[in-house]
Amino acid sequence: MKKKSIAIDMDGVLADIELQLIEHYNKATGKSLSKESIEGLSEEDAFTDRTLVREVLNADNFFRTLPVMPDAIESVRQLQENFEVFIVSAATEFPVSLAEKIAWLGEFFPFIKWENIILCGSKRIINTDYMIDDHCKNLDYCMGKPIMFTAFHNVNQTHHIRANNWKEVVAVLNQTVS
Amino acid sequence: MKKKSIAIDMDGVLADIELQLIEHYNKATGKSLSKESIEGLSEEDAFTDRTLVREVLNADNFFRTLPVMPDAIESVRQLQENFEVFIVSAATEFPVSLAEKIAWLGEFFPFIKWENIILCGSKRIINTDYMIDDHCKNLDYCMGKPIMFTAFHNVNQTHHIRANNWKEVVAVLNQTVS
Repeated sequence: MKKKSIAIDMDGVLADIELQLIEHYNKATGKSLSKESIEGLSEEDAFTDRTLVREVLNADNFFRTLPVMPDAIESVRQLQENFEVFIVSAATEFPVSLAEKIAWLGEFFPFIKWENIILCGSKRIINTDYMIDDHCKNLDYCMGKPIMFTAFHNVNQTHHIRANNWKEVVAVLNQTVS
Repeated sequence: MKKKSIAIDMDGVLADIELQLIEHYNKATGKSLSKESIEGLSEEDAFTDRTLVREVLNADNFFRTLPVMPDAIESVRQLQENFEVFIVSAATEFPVSLAEKIAWLGEFFPFIKWENIILCGSKRIINTDYMIDDHCKNLDYCMGKPIMFTAFHNVNQTHHIRANNWKEVVAVLNQTVS
Protein backbone atom coordinates (compact mmCIF):
# COMPACT_ATOMS: atom_id res chain seq x y z
CA MET A 1 0.00 0.00 0.00
CA LYS A 2 1.22 3.48 -0.82
CA LYS A 3 2.51 5.26 2.26
CA LYS A 4 0.55 8.29 3.40
CA SER A 5 2.40 11.57 3.13
CA ILE A 6 3.26 14.14 5.79
CA ALA A 7 4.36 17.76 5.31
CA ILE A 8 6.56 18.78 8.24
CA ASP A 9 7.32 22.43 8.93
CA MET A 10 10.83 23.53 9.95
CA ASP A 11 10.75 26.74 12.03
CA GLY A 12 9.05 26.08 15.34
CA VAL A 13 8.62 22.38 14.57
CA LEU A 14 11.95 20.79 13.58
CA ALA A 15 14.01 23.83 14.53
CA ASP A 16 13.68 25.81 17.76
CA ILE A 17 13.44 29.26 16.23
CA GLU A 18 11.69 30.59 19.36
CA LEU A 19 14.76 30.10 21.54
CA GLN A 20 17.17 31.63 19.05
CA LEU A 21 14.91 34.59 18.25
CA ILE A 22 14.52 35.38 21.95
CA GLU A 23 18.30 35.35 22.41
CA HIS A 24 18.96 37.62 19.43
CA TYR A 25 16.09 39.92 20.33
CA ASN A 26 17.15 40.29 23.96
CA LYS A 27 20.75 40.95 22.97
CA ALA A 28 19.74 43.71 20.55
CA THR A 29 17.13 45.38 22.74
CA GLY A 30 18.30 44.74 26.30
CA LYS A 31 14.97 43.13 27.07
CA SER A 32 14.65 39.87 28.96
CA LEU A 33 11.98 37.95 27.11
CA SER A 34 11.71 34.26 27.91
CA LYS A 35 9.68 31.34 26.55
CA GLU A 36 7.44 31.71 29.60
CA SER A 37 6.97 35.48 29.34
CA ILE A 38 5.77 35.39 25.72
CA GLU A 39 3.49 32.37 25.99
CA GLY A 40 0.05 33.11 24.58
CA LEU A 41 1.14 36.30 22.81
CA SER A 42 1.05 36.75 19.05
CA GLU A 43 4.42 37.06 17.33
CA GLU A 44 3.76 40.78 16.82
CA ASP A 45 2.99 41.32 20.52
CA ALA A 46 5.91 39.20 21.71
CA PHE A 47 8.52 40.78 19.44
CA THR A 48 7.22 44.31 19.01
CA ASP A 49 10.20 45.70 17.08
CA ARG A 50 9.25 44.18 13.71
CA THR A 51 12.10 45.90 11.86
CA LEU A 52 14.57 44.24 14.19
CA VAL A 53 12.89 40.86 13.71
CA ARG A 54 13.23 41.17 9.94
CA GLU A 55 16.91 42.11 10.32
CA VAL A 56 17.52 39.08 12.53
CA LEU A 57 15.72 36.74 10.14
CA ASN A 58 17.66 38.13 7.17
CA ALA A 59 21.05 37.86 8.87
CA ASP A 60 23.63 35.32 7.74
CA ASN A 61 23.70 32.14 9.81
CA PHE A 62 20.52 32.73 11.78
CA PHE A 63 18.71 29.76 10.27
CA ARG A 64 21.88 27.69 9.82
CA THR A 65 22.52 27.68 13.59
CA LEU A 66 19.03 26.96 14.93
CA PRO A 67 18.89 24.29 17.65
CA VAL A 68 17.09 21.09 16.74
CA MET A 69 13.81 20.52 18.57
CA PRO A 70 14.12 17.76 21.21
CA ASP A 71 13.47 14.24 19.85
CA ALA A 72 12.85 15.58 16.32
CA ILE A 73 15.60 13.60 14.59
CA GLU A 74 14.69 10.18 15.93
CA SER A 75 10.96 10.86 15.55
CA VAL A 76 11.20 11.84 11.89
CA ARG A 77 13.38 8.82 11.16
CA GLN A 78 10.78 6.64 12.84
CA LEU A 79 7.90 8.23 10.92
CA GLN A 80 9.68 7.49 7.64
CA GLU A 81 9.04 3.79 8.25
CA ASN A 82 5.30 4.25 7.82
CA PHE A 83 4.94 7.58 6.02
CA GLU A 84 6.44 9.48 3.13
CA VAL A 85 7.95 12.52 4.83
CA PHE A 86 8.22 15.90 3.09
CA ILE A 87 9.83 18.92 4.73
CA VAL A 88 7.77 21.98 3.78
CA SER A 89 9.15 25.28 4.99
CA ALA A 90 8.05 28.84 4.27
CA ALA A 91 11.38 30.33 3.24
CA THR A 92 11.16 32.35 0.03
CA GLU A 93 10.53 35.54 2.02
CA PHE A 94 14.09 35.28 3.36
CA PRO A 95 16.42 34.31 0.49
CA VAL A 96 19.48 33.97 2.76
CA SER A 97 17.67 31.22 4.62
CA LEU A 98 17.22 29.01 1.56
CA ALA A 99 20.66 27.41 1.22
CA GLU A 100 21.07 27.53 5.01
CA LYS A 101 17.95 25.44 5.48
CA ILE A 102 19.21 22.84 3.01
CA ALA A 103 22.58 22.74 4.83
CA TRP A 104 20.86 22.51 8.22
CA LEU A 105 18.72 19.60 7.05
CA GLY A 106 21.82 17.99 5.59
CA GLU A 107 23.53 18.17 8.97
CA PHE A 108 20.71 17.02 11.22
CA PHE A 109 18.36 15.13 8.86
CA PRO A 110 20.69 13.61 6.24
CA PHE A 111 18.14 10.84 5.68
CA ILE A 112 15.75 13.33 4.03
CA LYS A 113 16.42 13.39 0.29
CA TRP A 114 16.48 16.65 -1.70
CA GLU A 115 13.43 15.40 -3.63
CA ASN A 116 11.41 15.63 -0.40
CA ILE A 117 12.32 19.20 0.55
CA ILE A 118 10.04 22.11 -0.40
CA LEU A 119 10.95 25.72 0.33
CA CYS A 120 7.91 27.80 -0.35
CA GLY A 121 5.87 30.83 0.41
CA SER A 122 2.22 30.00 0.94
CA LYS A 123 1.51 26.34 1.68
CA ARG A 124 -1.94 26.46 0.07
CA ILE A 125 -1.01 24.29 -2.90
CA ILE A 126 0.77 21.61 -0.84
CA ASN A 127 -1.24 18.41 -0.90
CA THR A 128 -0.19 15.81 1.67
CA ASP A 129 -2.27 13.53 3.87
CA TYR A 130 -1.03 15.28 7.02
CA MET A 131 0.50 18.65 7.81
CA ILE A 132 2.46 19.34 11.01
CA ASP A 133 2.85 23.05 11.56
CA ASP A 134 2.67 25.70 14.27
CA HIS A 135 0.73 28.32 12.30
CA CYS A 136 -3.02 28.54 11.75
CA LYS A 137 -2.35 30.37 8.48
CA ASN A 138 -1.00 27.07 7.16
CA LEU A 139 -3.11 24.56 9.08
CA ASP A 140 -6.51 26.22 8.59
CA TYR A 141 -6.35 25.85 4.80
CA CYS A 142 -4.25 22.73 4.34
CA MET A 143 -5.56 19.95 2.12
CA GLY A 144 -4.68 17.12 4.52
CA LYS A 145 -5.27 16.54 8.21
CA PRO A 146 -3.69 19.32 10.31
CA ILE A 147 -1.64 18.66 13.45
CA MET A 148 -0.72 21.74 15.44
CA PHE A 149 2.75 21.69 16.99
CA THR A 150 2.75 23.76 20.17
CA ALA A 151 4.48 27.14 20.04
CA PHE A 152 4.20 30.21 22.27
CA HIS A 153 1.89 31.97 19.82
CA ASN A 154 -0.61 29.13 19.33
CA VAL A 155 -1.31 27.86 22.88
CA ASN A 156 -4.76 29.44 22.88
CA GLN A 157 -5.83 27.93 19.56
CA THR A 158 -8.05 24.92 20.17
CA HIS A 159 -9.48 23.95 16.78
CA HIS A 160 -6.73 21.56 15.65
CA ILE A 161 -5.36 18.29 17.01
CA ARG A 162 -2.36 19.36 19.09
CA ALA A 163 1.03 17.79 19.69
CA ASN A 164 3.12 19.40 22.42
CA ASN A 165 6.36 17.73 21.42
CA TRP A 166 7.78 15.20 18.97
CA LYS A 167 6.84 12.16 21.05
CA GLU A 168 3.22 13.28 20.88
CA VAL A 169 3.48 13.76 17.10
CA VAL A 170 4.63 10.17 16.68
CA ALA A 171 1.89 8.91 19.01
CA VAL A 172 -0.85 10.79 17.10
CA LEU A 173 0.38 9.58 13.71
CA ASN A 174 1.02 6.01 14.72
CA GLN A 175 -2.58 5.77 15.91
CA THR A 176 -3.63 6.45 12.32
CA VAL A 177 -1.70 3.48 10.90
CA SER A 178 -2.24 0.99 13.71
CA MET B 1 -15.25 33.08 -8.48
CA LYS B 2 -11.93 31.80 -7.18
CA LYS B 3 -9.24 31.97 -9.84
CA LYS B 4 -7.83 28.66 -11.03
CA SER B 5 -4.20 28.06 -10.16
CA ILE B 6 -1.23 27.37 -12.41
CA ALA B 7 2.16 25.97 -11.44
CA ILE B 8 4.79 27.31 -13.85
CA ASP B 9 8.22 25.71 -14.08
CA MET B 10 11.35 27.86 -14.36
CA ASP B 11 14.17 25.99 -16.16
CA GLY B 12 13.20 25.34 -19.77
CA VAL B 13 9.92 27.22 -19.39
CA LEU B 14 10.50 30.72 -17.97
CA ALA B 15 14.29 30.53 -18.28
CA ASP B 16 16.19 29.33 -21.35
CA ILE B 17 18.48 26.87 -19.60
CA GLU B 18 19.01 24.95 -22.86
CA LEU B 19 20.82 27.84 -24.52
CA GLN B 20 23.05 28.58 -21.53
CA LEU B 21 23.88 24.93 -20.87
CA ILE B 22 24.89 24.42 -24.51
CA GLU B 23 27.21 27.44 -24.33
CA HIS B 24 28.87 26.31 -21.09
CA TYR B 25 29.12 22.71 -22.26
CA ASN B 26 30.65 23.62 -25.62
CA LYS B 27 33.15 25.95 -23.99
CA ALA B 28 34.30 23.27 -21.53
CA THR B 29 34.41 20.37 -23.98
CA GLY B 30 35.25 22.00 -27.33
CA LYS B 31 32.12 20.43 -28.80
CA SER B 32 29.70 22.34 -30.99
CA LEU B 33 26.28 21.28 -29.80
CA SER B 34 23.37 23.43 -30.93
CA LYS B 35 19.65 23.52 -30.22
CA GLU B 36 19.12 21.79 -33.56
CA SER B 37 21.74 19.08 -33.06
CA ILE B 38 20.32 17.88 -29.73
CA GLU B 39 16.64 17.99 -30.65
CA GLY B 40 14.92 14.74 -29.79
CA LEU B 41 17.76 13.48 -27.59
CA SER B 42 17.41 12.81 -23.87
CA GLU B 43 19.37 15.11 -21.58
CA GLU B 44 21.79 12.26 -20.88
CA ASP B 45 22.39 11.63 -24.60
CA ALA B 46 22.68 15.32 -25.44
CA PHE B 47 25.09 16.19 -22.62
CA THR B 48 27.01 12.95 -22.13
CA ASP B 49 29.54 14.27 -19.60
CA ARG B 50 27.22 14.18 -16.59
CA THR B 51 29.94 15.20 -14.14
CA LEU B 52 30.52 18.35 -16.14
CA VAL B 53 26.78 19.07 -16.24
CA ARG B 54 26.60 18.83 -12.46
CA GLU B 55 29.60 21.17 -12.12
CA VAL B 56 27.96 23.70 -14.43
CA LEU B 57 24.63 23.55 -12.60
CA ASN B 58 26.36 23.95 -9.24
CA ALA B 59 28.49 26.91 -10.33
CA ASP B 60 27.84 30.39 -9.00
CA ASN B 61 25.76 32.59 -11.29
CA PHE B 62 24.66 29.91 -13.72
CA PHE B 63 21.00 30.19 -12.78
CA ARG B 64 21.20 33.92 -12.00
CA THR B 65 22.23 34.73 -15.58
CA LEU B 66 19.81 32.55 -17.56
CA PRO B 67 18.10 34.32 -20.46
CA VAL B 68 14.36 34.82 -20.16
CA MET B 69 12.28 32.75 -22.57
CA PRO B 70 10.77 34.92 -25.33
CA ASP B 71 7.38 36.47 -24.42
CA ALA B 72 7.45 34.88 -20.95
CA ILE B 73 7.25 38.10 -18.94
CA GLU B 74 4.26 39.62 -20.73
CA SER B 75 2.51 36.26 -20.92
CA VAL B 76 2.77 35.51 -17.20
CA ARG B 77 1.59 39.02 -16.37
CA GLN B 78 -1.37 38.49 -18.67
CA LEU B 79 -2.19 35.09 -17.14
CA GLN B 80 -2.28 36.67 -13.68
CA GLU B 81 -5.43 38.50 -14.70
CA ASN B 82 -7.39 35.25 -14.89
CA PHE B 83 -5.33 32.76 -12.89
CA GLU B 84 -3.43 32.52 -9.64
CA VAL B 85 0.13 31.95 -10.78
CA PHE B 86 2.65 29.94 -8.76
CA ILE B 87 6.26 29.47 -9.82
CA VAL B 88 7.24 25.89 -8.98
CA SER B 89 10.86 25.03 -9.66
CA ALA B 90 12.86 21.91 -8.82
CA ALA B 91 15.85 23.51 -7.12
CA THR B 92 16.74 21.83 -3.84
CA GLU B 93 19.21 19.52 -5.65
CA PHE B 94 21.36 22.59 -6.36
CA PRO B 95 21.49 24.78 -3.22
CA VAL B 96 23.45 27.56 -4.95
CA SER B 97 20.54 27.99 -7.32
CA LEU B 98 18.00 28.76 -4.58
CA ALA B 99 18.75 32.40 -3.78
CA GLU B 100 19.76 32.97 -7.41
CA LYS B 101 16.35 31.86 -8.59
CA ILE B 102 14.63 34.24 -6.19
CA ALA B 103 16.87 37.08 -7.38
CA TRP B 104 16.27 36.15 -11.03
CA LEU B 105 12.51 36.20 -10.49
CA GLY B 106 12.84 39.50 -8.65
CA GLU B 107 14.60 41.00 -11.66
CA PHE B 108 12.40 39.69 -14.45
CA PHE B 109 9.11 38.84 -12.71
CA PRO B 110 8.84 41.38 -9.88
CA PHE B 111 5.06 41.04 -10.00
CA ILE B 112 5.31 37.50 -8.59
CA LYS B 113 5.10 37.66 -4.79
CA TRP B 114 7.33 35.51 -2.55
CA GLU B 115 4.20 33.73 -1.31
CA ASN B 116 3.73 32.29 -4.80
CA ILE B 117 7.23 30.88 -5.26
CA ILE B 118 7.97 27.23 -4.48
CA LEU B 119 11.47 25.77 -4.73
CA CYS B 120 11.15 22.05 -4.42
CA GLY B 121 12.43 18.65 -5.26
CA SER B 122 9.70 16.35 -6.48
CA LYS B 123 6.54 18.11 -7.64
CA ARG B 124 4.29 15.22 -6.65
CA ILE B 125 2.63 17.04 -3.74
CA ILE B 126 1.97 20.25 -5.68
CA ASN B 127 -1.75 20.66 -6.25
CA THR B 128 -2.71 23.30 -8.81
CA ASP B 129 -5.35 23.27 -11.52
CA TYR B 130 -2.70 23.43 -14.26
CA MET B 131 0.99 22.62 -14.48
CA ILE B 132 3.25 23.98 -17.21
CA ASP B 133 6.48 22.04 -17.37
CA ASP B 134 8.91 20.51 -19.85
CA HIS B 135 9.45 17.20 -18.02
CA CYS B 136 7.29 14.08 -18.12
CA LYS B 137 8.56 13.19 -14.64
CA ASN B 138 6.57 16.18 -13.39
CA LEU B 139 3.65 16.23 -15.85
CA ASP B 140 2.83 12.52 -15.81
CA TYR B 141 1.99 12.55 -12.10
CA CYS B 142 0.72 16.06 -11.53
CA MET B 143 -2.61 16.58 -9.84
CA GLY B 144 -3.88 19.21 -12.27
CA LYS B 145 -4.04 19.42 -16.05
CA PRO B 146 -0.57 19.14 -17.59
CA ILE B 147 0.68 21.40 -20.37
CA MET B 148 4.01 20.40 -21.90
CA PHE B 149 6.30 23.26 -22.82
CA THR B 150 8.46 22.24 -25.76
CA ALA B 151 12.13 21.50 -25.06
CA PHE B 152 14.74 19.58 -27.05
CA HIS B 153 14.31 16.49 -24.87
CA ASN B 154 10.50 16.24 -25.08
CA VAL B 155 9.72 16.77 -28.78
CA ASN B 156 8.88 13.09 -29.26
CA GLN B 157 6.48 12.90 -26.30
CA THR B 158 2.91 13.07 -27.55
CA HIS B 159 0.72 12.27 -24.56
CA HIS B 160 0.29 15.82 -23.18
CA ILE B 161 -1.21 19.02 -24.56
CA ARG B 162 1.77 20.88 -25.99
CA ALA B 163 2.69 24.55 -26.10
CA ASN B 164 5.67 25.42 -28.29
CA ASN B 165 6.12 28.90 -26.88
CA TRP B 166 4.57 31.35 -24.46
CA LYS B 167 2.01 32.68 -26.94
CA GLU B 168 0.68 29.15 -27.28
CA VAL B 169 0.55 28.73 -23.48
CA VAL B 170 -1.64 31.81 -23.19
CA ALA B 171 -3.86 30.65 -26.05
CA VAL B 172 -4.35 27.19 -24.49
CA LEU B 173 -5.15 28.60 -21.05
CA ASN B 174 -7.38 31.40 -22.24
CA GLN B 175 -9.52 28.82 -24.04
CA THR B 176 -10.25 27.28 -20.65
CA VAL B 177 -11.65 30.49 -19.16
CA SER B 178 -13.46 31.87 -22.23
